[in-house]
Amino acid sequence: MRVRAEDAVLVDASTLREQVAAVFIARGAPEEHARIVADILVTADLRGVDSHGALNTVRYVGDIDSGNYTVPQTLEVVNETPATAVLDNGNGFGFVGAHRAMSMAIEKAREVGIGQVVLRHGHHIGMAAYYPMMALEHDMIGMAVTNSTPHMRPVGGLGAKVGTNPIAFAAPAGRERPFVLDMATTTVANGKIRLAHRLGLPLPEGWAVTTEDGTPITEAPDKAAEWWTLEPLGGTLPLGGHKGYGLGVMVDILAGVLSGGGFSRELPTGHNQAWFMAIDIGRFRPIEDFKAHMDAMIAELHSTPPAPGSDRVLVAGDPEAEILERRTREGIPLQRSLVEEIRAKATELGAPILI
Amino acid sequence: MRVRAEDAVLVDASTLREQVAAVFIARGAPEEHARIVADILVTADLRGVDSHGALNTVRYVGDIDSGNYTVPQTLEVVNETPATAVLDNGNGFGFVGAHRAMSMAIEKAREVGIGQVVLRHGHHIGMAAYYPMMALEHDMIGMAVTNSTPHMRPVGGLGAKVGTNPIAFAAPAGRERPFVLDMATTTVANGKIRLAHRLGLPLPEGWAVTTEDGTPITEAPDKAAEWWTLEPLGGTLPLGGHKGYGLGVMVDILAGVLSGGGFSRELPTGHNQAWFMAIDIGRFRPIEDFKAHMDAMIAELHSTPPAPGSDRVLVAGDPEAEILERRTREGIPLQRSLVEEIRAKATELGAPILI
Repeated sequence: MRVRAEDAVLVDASTLREQVAAVFIARGAPEEHARIVADILVTADLRGVDSHGALNTVRYVGDIDSGNYTVPQTLEVVNETPATAVLDNGNGFGFVGAHRAMSMAIEKAREVGIGQVVLRHGHHIGMAAYYPMMALEHDMIGMAVTNSTPHMRPVGGLGAKVGTNPIAFAAPAGRERPFVLDMATTTVANGKIRLAHRLGLPLPEGWAVTTEDGTPITEAPDKAAEWWTLEPLGGTLPLGGHKGYGLGVMVDILAGVLSGGGFSRELPTGHNQAWFMAIDIGRFRPIEDFKAHMDAMIAELHSTPPAPGSDRVLVAGDPEAEILERRTREGIPLQRSLVEEIRAKATELGAPILI
Repeated sequence: MRVRAEDAVLVDASTLREQVAAVFIARGAPEEHARIVADILVTADLRGVDSHGALNTVRYVGDIDSGNYTVPQTLEVVNETPATAVLDNGNGFGFVGAHRAMSMAIEKAREVGIGQVVLRHGHHIGMAAYYPMMALEHDMIGMAVTNSTPHMRPVGGLGAKVGTNPIAFAAPAGRERPFVLDMATTTVANGKIRLAHRLGLPLPEGWAVTTEDGTPITEAPDKAAEWWTLEPLGGTLPLGGHKGYGLGVMVDILAGVLSGGGFSRELPTGHNQAWFMAIDIGRFRPIEDFKAHMDAMIAELHSTPPAPGSDRVLVAGDPEAEILERRTREGIPLQRSLVEEIRAKATELGAPILI
C-alpha cells in the first residue's frame, strides 16, 4: 500500500501539518479547525494509513468549494448529560466534530467514569483510530465507530445495505505499545479494492461480489458502484459472515440510530455519523496495575511461535506504530505528484508553500 | 444443531425452569440464585441455543460437588462509582454474578445514562445474549463480553492464546424484533466443533487448525486439546483474520484486564471474566424515535433481495426469536437421555421430579 521509493519525496511531519493547515486556513477554515484536520490527516500518514492521509487535502478543499462542507462550521451540543451528549457537526469537517466529540467523551469520563458522545450530520472522520488514541494520554480506554454509505451486502442477500462501518478501540499499556484496533466490518475496506485496481492485482475470493447474483469478483473495480458490493468480515455464513454483518449493523445502531443522524442506507454520499466512548480505567483499578497487566498480555501474544510463512506474531497497532517510528525519524514519503497537487492548490489559494 | 424429533420429549419452559431450579436448590443454592441460573439456561433452550441450555444442569452440579463452584456464593462490590463497578463473583455461578452485574449496569444507566460493570473471578455465564437482552425492557441498549481459556490462535501464530471471547449486543425496536447479536470472535464457537464430531460431519476449512504447523483440520476433534486451535473470525490475514483476533483481544482487555480477573491465558479451565454495559437511549433521543428508526432499518435489511441459495435476509436475533416463538408455544424438545439424566440427579438430591 505504499508509495514506491523512487516516486517519493520525504516530508517532515510537522512541515506537512503546517502545509495542510495553511491550505485549509486559506480556504476559510478557522485556524483551530484547520490544525485539527491537518493533525488527523498527517497522523494517518505517519502511521502508514496513506489512504486517510494528506492525499485527501485537495479533495476536501473541493468539498468546501462544492458546498458539500460548510466552512466555517458551527458545532452544536443538541443534548447533554454528565455522561452523554449529542453533538451536531454543522455539516462541516467530520474531523472537527469527531475531535470535539471524543474530547467531550474524555471530559465526561474524567467526571463520571464513562463518557459517550454521538455525532450527527457529520462527514468523513478519517482514520478512526485517531479518536480512541486521544484517550490514551488520559489513561483511558477509547472507542469509536462510524457508519458510511452502503458497501456491504447482508449475508444471504444481494446489494449494498450496510457501510464498511469501522470499529476502533485503543487501550494503554506500560512498557509495551498501546493496543490499537481499527477495522472495517467488511472483509476489507474500500481503499484495498481501489489499490488492487491501481496496481492491477487480482482480488482474493471473499472480498467482493456482484450485486446481480453474488458471484465473487476477482478483477478489482476502480470505484464503488451499484453492480458490486463488499463482503462482511467472515464472508460466507459457514465462515461467520453473519458476524461481520452483525457488527456492521451494531455500528449503524450506535452511530446512526442512537444519534438520529441516519443508518447507512439513509446517508447521502460522503455523510457519516459516529459514536465515541471513553472509559476512565482508574475507576476500575489502579492504572499502573492495568498497564502492567496489559504489558503481560501483549508480551504473551508476542511470544506466540510463528506459523509457517510468518516471521512473528503482531498485536493490533504494531504495524502502524513501527511505521510511525520510522516516518517520525525519516519523514513521510509523499508521491511527487501529490506534492505538486498540494503546492498548486496552496498557490491558487494564496497559502504559503512549505513542502 | 437440534435434537432429532424422534429422540425428543417436549417440555414446557416454565416446568423446565422449576425443575432446573429445584435441582440447584437441592444442591445448596439459595432459591434466588437457583432461579436466576435456571432462567438463563432455559432461555437459551427457548432460543434454540441448546448447547448453553438445561443440558448443562448436571455438569454444574458436578462443579459444586468438586468444589470448582462455591455455593452459596457471596457477591462483593469491590469498587463502585455512579457509572461503574467492579463485582467479585465469589467463585460461584458465573450466571449469578453476571445477572447482578448487568442489573447494576442498568441501574447505573438509569441514574447517569451509562453503566459499566466488570465481573471478576467468575465462571461460565451461559448464553451471552441474555444479559444485553435484560436492558431491552428498560428501553436501553445492552452489551456484554466475556473471555475464556484460550482456544484461538493469533493470526500468523501457532497455539491457542485467546478465548472464543464472545461479544453480545442488543438494542430494542418498535414493531420489529429487537436486534440481538451474540457472536464468538472465533470463526465458530467450540460447540460447533463438538457437534460436528458427534454428527460425524467434516469441518470446513477455516474453522480449526493444528498447533504443530497450522494445517487446517477437516475431521472434527471431540474436545478442546493442545494439538488444535480455532481460527479467529476472518480466518487468514487476507480475509481479515487479524480483525477477529483483534476483537478477541479487545474482549480480553475489557473483561480480563479492566476487571483484573485475568486475560485468557491466565484463566484456569472453566473460569471467565466479563464486562457489561447499559446505555439509556432516552439520554440521546426520545425512545419512540429511536424505536421507529430501528424499525425502518430492520425493515430495510429484511427487504434485501435474497442471494441464490438463500430464501431471505435475516437480522441478528431473528433465527433465535423464531425458535423462541415456536418453543414457547410447543415446548422445548429435550433429548430423552437428558430428561433421564436430570430426573436421576433430582432423585439423588431429593428434589421433586417435575419433567
